Amino acid sequence: MSEPTLDVVAVGNALVDVLAQTTEEFIAQQKQEFGMEKGAMTLIDALRAVDLYEAMGPGVESSGGSAANTMAGFAAFGGRGGFIGKVAGDTLGKVFAHDLRALGVRFETQPLVMGAPTGRCLILITPDGQRTMNTFLGASVELKPDDVDRAMIASARIIYLEGYLFDRPHAKQAFIRAAEYAHAAGHRVALTLSDPFCVDRHRSDFLRLVENHVDILFANEEELKSLYMQESFSDAMSAVDKHVEIAVLTRSEKGAVILSKGKSWEIPAAPVARVVDTTGAGDQFAAGFLYGLCQDMDLPTCGRLGALAAAEVIQHVGPRPQSAYKDLIARAA
Amino acid sequence: MSEPTLDVVAVGNALVDVLAQTTEEFIAQQKQEFGMEKGAMTLIDALRAVDLYEAMGPGVESSGGSAANTMAGFAAFGGRGGFIGKVAGDTLGKVFAHDLRALGVRFETQPLVMGAPTGRCLILITPDGQRTMNTFLGASVELKPDDVDRAMIASARIIYLEGYLFDRPHAKQAFIRAAEYAHAAGHRVALTLSDPFCVDRHRSDFLRLVENHVDILFANEEELKSLYMQESFSDAMSAVDKHVEIAVLTRSEKGAVILSKGKSWEIPAAPVARVVDTTGAGDQFAAGFLYGLCQDMDLPTCGRLGALAAAEVIQHVGPRPQSAYKDLIARAA
Repeated sequence: MSEPTLDVVAVGNALVDVLAQTTEEFIAQQKQEFGMEKGAMTLIDALRAVDLYEAMGPGVESSGGSAANTMAGFAAFGGRGGFIGKVAGDTLGKVFAHDLRALGVRFETQPLVMGAPTGRCLILITPDGQRTMNTFLGASVELKPDDVDRAMIASARIIYLEGYLFDRPHAKQAFIRAAEYAHAAGHRVALTLSDPFCVDRHRSDFLRLVENHVDILFANEEELKSLYMQESFSDAMSAVDKHVEIAVLTRSEKGAVILSKGKSWEIPAAPVARVVDTTGAGDQFAAGFLYGLCQDMDLPTCGRLGALAAAEVIQHVGPRPQSAYKDLIARAA
Repeated sequence: MSEPTLDVVAVGNALVDVLAQTTEEFIAQQKQEFGMEKGAMTLIDALRAVDLYEAMGPGVESSGGSAANTMAGFAAFGGRGGFIGKVAGDTLGKVFAHDLRALGVRFETQPLVMGAPTGRCLILITPDGQRTMNTFLGASVELKPDDVDRAMIASARIIYLEGYLFDRPHAKQAFIRAAEYAHAAGHRVALTLSDPFCVDRHRSDFLRLVENHVDILFANEEELKSLYMQESFSDAMSAVDKHVEIAVLTRSEKGAVILSKGKSWEIPAAPVARVVDTTGAGDQFAAGFLYGLCQDMDLPTCGRLGALAAAEVIQHVGPRPQSAYKDLIARAA
């Protein structure tokens, strides 16, 4: 077991977000015509991405991808992070790489040479601040097991896996390989379930992964209930507590619950002046929690760091921090 | 004189902004090495753009360009606008075109087929909210007099010209042609001086234009003083009042002064909770003012609309409105 040189390495989709304001009526009409689900993530193909972009209002582009957002937040706290994910060699791919590397996040995955362009996520923000995501995965589904850099994985104390990657078989294999490398190096594996519909599409695979490979699970209430097919949150909590060392369960404005070895802590949501855009809230919660964990803080402090980072990101448009998170550390203590 | 079908057509640089947070130290170091001027706009070439992007922190991409930002704000008020400017046929060019058209702004200039990529402006935001711009003009300097669509110009009540275009000879000619078309159609010509350094580079051309072609002038205090080479703002005001029908003079947190035919009105700045990013403040002031003018509101109400739009845009990152401006109209009345 070598001495870790990174704190966390994440494996996830490499996407650039296009964020646009919209109306409830637009979402309702898109739901009727195309099955768009408010608040959720819908996968779309290249043609649909073009059509939807045409129909959308003016946008702002920001590097995204759930686990990559978490690493951006993790670096904004001062954490040492790495990322594994697939872009193409195009403008958006260069933007994605720049935005991670500029924060000091190690990102060395080879861009896709021929094939799909860099993936993008068209995000519609309703006046209530809720985000509805439409993802064209593009190059990010071409992440192959061979892209998983064993040395990088082994160099990190925690590997953090994004559930959305389960939507493609190759990527799922890359994912499991990463978990095996981490455990072989004696390090911990964290997973975020990402989306209740994604959990629904891959429930048995997720359950196997959680029982056999995952030490730290991040999920929101809906995702956890979907995983265990439980109507009650407390029944789902009882189930997950048997399977993982730490479960970090977020509940939007109700705050979060942390479970570990039969104990639990309730973390209240941090106050916000106005919810502008909830994109990235879960990702930044994970960033704060993981940072605290890597600094050997106690679990409730880790949770408060997560809540503070989530509160920062929902007060502006876009899924990544717009300021350094270092001053949050004193506030969480 | 045909009946106008548009309210305002703007001619300007077609740019995509990359906005990143930075420190005072970074600006100071860049000033020493490359002459970057805090708060101003510095022109950079393609190589320097690559180097600076590498050195910058993570960014957010947003369609920009001063006059294009004004048209985005004008459309957010409900105004009927058009834009003339040059992008390339690349990803950023498509983003720029989408973001204008999605607001209902007419944009029909042919993209550049061979040559430079779409122009971009690398914007560094310091903790005080001030923006420092570094512009690689790219395709936007390839705007030619033939790109100026006479029918579109003639269809608008006001043509709005961006001073930054003066940085390239072809574009300057396109500019003067647009002014001639507008006057031939019996419509008004507005100009924004854009930047004190830009005024300094082209003072005699600007003076000729203002005296001979401009009905409505937008400038901030520094730009106006630079134009007339006056140390005192009131001396510069006396000079400009003789040359134009309306002068709209913005003074950041001190508000604005409107001059017209020997009369003047002071417009206080609208209150803001926190200045996040001043990018686009002047552009959005112009949007509000022009909207009011096209609705035949009185000049102080036009000024208040401008102040409210400027206050909206400086409370978030990016140069364009993040919400419809329609509710500002009642507040200005």
